[in-house]
Amino acid sequence: MKPALGIGIAGLGTVGGGVLKLLHDNAEYVARRAGRRLEVRAVSARDRRKERGVALNGAVWLDNARALASQPGVDVVVELIGGAEGVARDLAQATLDRGKPLVTANKALLARHGTDLAMRAEKAGVALACEAAVAGGIPILKALREGLAGNRIESAVGILNGTCNYILTEMQRTGRDFAEVLAEAQRLGYAEADPAFDVDGVDAAHKLAILASIAFGFAVDFGAVHVEGIRSITAADIDYARQLGYRIKLLAIAERTPHGIAQRVHPAMVPLRSPLAHVDGVFNAIVVEGDFVGRTVFEGRGAGAGPTASAVVADLVDIAAGRVAPAFGVPIRWLDNQPKAPIDRHRGTFYVRLQVVDRPGVLADIAAVLRDETISIESLLQRGRDPGEEVSVVMTTHETEEAAMGRALARIAKLGAVTEAPHRIRIVPN
Amino acid sequence: MKPALGIGIAGLGTVGGGVLKLLHDNAEYVARRAGRRLEVRAVSARDRRKERGVALNGAVWLDNARALASQPGVDVVVELIGGAEGVARDLAQATLDRGKPLVTANKALLARHGTDLAMRAEKAGVALACEAAVAGGIPILKALREGLAGNRIESAVGILNGTCNYILTEMQRTGRDFAEVLAEAQRLGYAEADPAFDVDGVDAAHKLAILASIAFGFAVDFGAVHVEGIRSITAADIDYARQLGYRIKLLAIAERTPHGIAQRVHPAMVPLRSPLAHVDGVFNAIVVEGDFVGRTVFEGRGAGAGPTASAVVADLVDIAAGRVAPAFGVPIRWLDNQPKAPIDRHRGTFYVRLQVVDRPGVLADIAAVLRDETISIESLLQRGRDPGEEVSVVMTTHETEEAAMGRALARIAKLGAVTEAPHRIRIVPN
Repeated sequence: MKPALGIGIAGLGTVGGGVLKLLHDNAEYVARRAGRRLEVRAVSARDRRKERGVALNGAVWLDNARALASQPGVDVVVELIGGAEGVARDLAQATLDRGKPLVTANKALLARHGTDLAMRAEKAGVALACEAAVAGGIPILKALREGLAGNRIESAVGILNGTCNYILTEMQRTGRDFAEVLAEAQRLGYAEADPAFDVDGVDAAHKLAILASIAFGFAVDFGAVHVEGIRSITAADIDYARQLGYRIKLLAIAERTPHGIAQRVHPAMVPLRSPLAHVDGVFNAIVVEGDFVGRTVFEGRGAGAGPTASAVVADLVDIAAGRVAPAFGVPIRWLDNQPKAPIDRHRGTFYVRLQVVDRPGVLADIAAVLRDETISIESLLQRGRDPGEEVSVVMTTHETEEAAMGRALARIAKLGAVTEAPHRIRIVPN
Repeated sequence: MKPALGIGIAGLGTVGGGVLKLLHDNAEYVARRAGRRLEVRAVSARDRRKERGVALNGAVWLDNARALASQPGVDVVVELIGGAEGVARDLAQATLDRGKPLVTANKALLARHGTDLAMRAEKAGVALACEAAVAGGIPILKALREGLAGNRIESAVGILNGTCNYILTEMQRTGRDFAEVLAEAQRLGYAEADPAFDVDGVDAAHKLAILASIAFGFAVDFGAVHVEGIRSITAADIDYARQLGYRIKLLAIAERTPHGIAQRVHPAMVPLRSPLAHVDGVFNAIVVEGDFVGRTVFEGRGAGAGPTASAVVADLVDIAAGRVAPAFGVPIRWLDNQPKAPIDRHRGTFYVRLQVVDRPGVLADIAAVLRDETISIESLLQRGRDPGEEVSVVMTTHETEEAAMGRALARIAKLGAVTEAPHRIRIVPN
């Protein structure tokens, strides 16, 4: 067997603890697949005294994570600190610049500075590996980069945030409203005390930026991702979705369009026939369409100590075995500059829910606005109440352009009988 | 860019044609991901004059496939001839023995002679790659070997034969019987003129033998795979399955048991909550349980020109990029000799359908036999008819041992009132 590979780990939270446990429990399996042992030789974390349930077995403790990059005996650095800037970025740069491979689960870092880091990795001729950054234990980056390498990818559509999926699944299951389910998710540890990063779609957008770059071969472009979260989804929307044969999911979508590659994260009505409609709770899934392979679906746990450790160690095994692929599938100089489709050019069908006071002429006013924007209605549902009371008007449209829908809803919002801002949710075909 | 990689292809049927088309249509994508161009420099097939819809662009034509191994300019051989012996095996051996990498879609060859070929590949220090041999376009071998490399795999359960899945799906959808649907599948080209290989489970068993070897790290052992096909499944079984909340699928199962690794291919009752229950038509899917990653699911097209070509080219890209993994995940000398669990030691629940003449005492006789084998009944369904007529008695059992069930059914078959051999289908928990 080849000499052991020395590992340095920065960050010993949930994931770091999982990586230590995996490397300990499955040391034999890992060594056989890697062709050598993987030895944790140095670690760094904020709190030295915290009980982590795993022995560090004489690994050197460094107070300064950045020092891992130059620590003798450390052949690979695993960055599990998180955050797009600060220590995580410093450590990543220092590691690659010293000619050592870097394994990271840090989606924010990759989404913001992926191209810079990949360039440093290439210059040094070492791996920058980030399987754990997207969809936890599902080996989706490897699948896109290597397993489906022969395909021109048409689209990759995923459920990439477990917190949002848990909240939407619970809203669907119990009929409760967003705020109530969020509070429960926070009590259960499925949502952070500050949930913004998850529920506003930013986390999913970071992951999508990485996924899209690998799928389509352009430099990661987080700024081009359109992001909406799930705060505006109500129990009423969930219920109407059910009646219409849909589930509401936070989707991360990257697809070829006539206007370029679209990258968007937003709640969507997913038809029940779609595999994504049945991905519930903390599970993640990605549906990839390739020109030769057709549709492939990948599903698994998107977060947590075990699945994330599984992805980190897979990257370590590849590095130990000498298998290196460019971080984004192709060398940086070959990433091309494909145009990105702005959200305004999105074409699709929509679900719209309006709260209106039920008086004569309301529907005629709404219909006139839609006609002016050439938006045609596919179905309309108005629950009867007594005249003069507030009712919901729910409709689905035929295909139209995002910009037209935006203009129409802005005008509708100003109609006297409309009592709150219109709710609109994009419908995906499958 | 590095110099082009020279490809030789043996066999230009559906899959060979697909590989040629992919390498032509997606030449740019492939070159960027491989870091070099992939050039088809020589081909061999039975019929030189057949129209294949793709230009061979000056590739040398060899009448003898075996000559590809020594053809100058051919750096990698793609074997798409099929069959465990004969030309395919000769070519594979000759290629590896000459120190050239081999890519093959040949599951029979790998299931029968995988260890021998992997040994030759290791000796020569070249790749033996067979992603296309299992589950078509789904990169499941790569996922098990690399993407989930950190895990101790507990089980891998798949739908691996598209022909059987198409037939069972159509039986379910239309209520028709096996023979009728098979005939239609043959007309549509979804089943071969001689369907035995598919419908008797042999094809799925070949694939399972390869999958299990990689998942569990033992030398491929086709002889240890228990194989049953789908010929015995009737429209009545399909209908009872539906009533009981199941779908009948031909499953390929590899799992750890207290008696060793079980490898079995047989029809199974799959509960509707299982992702495999919803994999229909020609699709394949595999559910993998790993100790750290938990459950992951992979789904896609299991056969056909496009998906199989996608897998073949993924292997070529890995080879072109210098990424080599042992064919079975670990070097041959580290494959261990884990015991295999014989089917008789299988424990599980069963569906049993008996055709009996409805006369007093029949049920008592059946119940007595089951009691003697300590098999307890979970549910029992007997459709009433006039006394003296033939009726179906359908039951599901609590967990019992395969051997006990076998003995019980042998005795029940001999009861005077039982008019045909008992039908029993194993139920899988999820």
